[in-house]
Amino acid sequence: MRDHGGDLDRAIARFGGREADWIDLSTGINRRPWAMPPVSEAAWRRLPTRTDHAGLLDAARRAWGVHPGLDGIALAGAQAAIQMIPHLRPPGRALVLAPTYNEHAGSLAAQGWAVAEARDLAALAGADLAVVVNPNNPDGRRHAPGDLRALAADVGLLVVDESFGDVAPGLSLLPGGGRALVLRSFGKFWGLAGLRLGFAFGPEPLIAGLRALAGPWPVSGPAIGAGAAALADRGWAQAMRATLAGDAVRMDALAHAAGWRLVGGTGLFRLYDAGNAQEAQDRLARAHVWSRVFPDAPAWLRLGLPGPEAEWQRLETVLRIM
Amino acid sequence: MRDHGGDLDRAIARFGGREADWIDLSTGINRRPWAMPPVSEAAWRRLPTRTDHAGLLDAARRAWGVHPGLDGIALAGAQAAIQMIPHLRPPGRALVLAPTYNEHAGSLAAQGWAVAEARDLAALAGADLAVVVNPNNPDGRRHAPGDLRALAADVGLLVVDESFGDVAPGLSLLPGGGRALVLRSFGKFWGLAGLRLGFAFGPEPLIAGLRALAGPWPVSGPAIGAGAAALADRGWAQAMRATLAGDAVRMDALAHAAGWRLVGGTGLFRLYDAGNAQEAQDRLARAHVWSRVFPDAPAWLRLGLPGPEAEWQRLETVLRIM
Repeated sequence: MRDHGGDLDRAIARFGGREADWIDLSTGINRRPWAMPPVSEAAWRRLPTRTDHAGLLDAARRAWGVHPGLDGIALAGAQAAIQMIPHLRPPGRALVLAPTYNEHAGSLAAQGWAVAEARDLAALAGADLAVVVNPNNPDGRRHAPGDLRALAADVGLLVVDESFGDVAPGLSLLPGGGRALVLRSFGKFWGLAGLRLGFAFGPEPLIAGLRALAGPWPVSGPAIGAGAAALADRGWAQAMRATLAGDAVRMDALAHAAGWRLVGGTGLFRLYDAGNAQEAQDRLARAHVWSRVFPDAPAWLRLGLPGPEAEWQRLETVLRIM
Repeated sequence: MRDHGGDLDRAIARFGGREADWIDLSTGINRRPWAMPPVSEAAWRRLPTRTDHAGLLDAARRAWGVHPGLDGIALAGAQAAIQMIPHLRPPGRALVLAPTYNEHAGSLAAQGWAVAEARDLAALAGADLAVVVNPNNPDGRRHAPGDLRALAADVGLLVVDESFGDVAPGLSLLPGGGRALVLRSFGKFWGLAGLRLGFAFGPEPLIAGLRALAGPWPVSGPAIGAGAAALADRGWAQAMRATLAGDAVRMDALAHAAGWRLVGGTGLFRLYDAGNAQEAQDRLARAHVWSRVFPDAPAWLRLGLPGPEAEWQRLETVLRIM
């Protein structure tokens, strides 16, 4: 299995404590989650219907202002789309704008694609399949929608992963439509990653391909109900964007005081040059704060943002004594 | 999309009523569900860990007495395995023992396999991939484990779908191991289909293939927690098997009185020759009881079993006046 955040069990095995003792900042999952309403008994019991799916998809279209020319599908996380994309076309040459979330290259390579990394948008041209994460994880790199639309004409299939798009809505390709296959995550911004919910939007033939790969019941009943309600809660989303923007500023100040230099980030995670990131991760972990390091970039330390004030206080204390 | 049960929204569109007014007997999902415990906030919020997955898989292995030589994986329903199986091998010639659940042939054909139907086990020999559902849906046909083990040596890959295996535990290939890829459903017997949980067991290389196709987080946090607890509740399962066996006898008596002839079934559904099944379905639907008919078998009416006594009473009344 590829290296990920969200592996708190490994941290506990090495540094002790119970799950509740830890502040897990190893992911970009919002620690100020949308409040799950009670789940109806029916949502657990029965198979979701086409009507349920259609309602969820409508809520997503409205939340993100999706262009009417784009088709869409709800899936069990943006990751589910990443698993299916290699099967949309016969394996060929894929280029991934790197560094980025390693599941794109991993999933393509595992299904027979020849995968290479590119360092800028222009270098992606000519690929049978190209992947851009916008804004990017882990460094927050951003691409203008117009640049991506131009690129879509120069590759066989352009995949734009907007998993962190809810904290950078101006970057989204969804309102303008186009040829790219666009992925959205629900779990990260709404802080409900255990629910497993994500979406893909794009031209009808691509979405029809995903539909055939996903089968009739890809999303759980509770995810359909909660997802539709949360996506319709526009006030929460607007306020959360402002809160997370403030949180990012607060985190950067703490990191600066700790001697770390900001590399980039979004409202859901920050990437710092920590000199020796492994040493910083170990120190944080001894205080039961879990972070993310990257095998290929030994200086990089990625931190999600604490949620409740008590978590912020604890992080401040830990950073002060480090 | 292929024809299924579980399409109550279409019944409502045609025959009216609200969802709560209907008794949905169009599926084989147990209407006496295992009681969902409260879901922890953490299960919604965080990504499931490898430790979570391992715990769920251990519970499944114990519940079904899985041979230690078999590897296993938890997925978002047996359907998720059906979606992935076409990608385990290069497309070739697949044979499906028919009539059966139509998603097997549908999913294989959609991914480039040449699919044909066979009418008995012997006719499956020589296939690159063969599918047997045991006990079978919709007719309850059963195959001895020894016959299936022998068949596994004569085909490229044998898939045995034991989605209804919990009401016929003596048929399972899991305790004895072997070369077949065995699918299990959680949602049907435990009555929690909205949760989306199922399993596949088989030789390590096959399961490794499914693992690569499924990615790191195929199952939701609540499904992992509830699934592990429910699978460990052996007393419930034992009592439920007895209850459902009694329910099947009760249903057959009602059907007999209605002039229908039993074709076959399991403790989770019964298949009747109703003469004109479409007419019987329409009559039941006017009383807001939903059933399953089959385009290719105009006499066949499949009914799941009612749960609470009030549902039984209503069904009895409806059948009496039909």
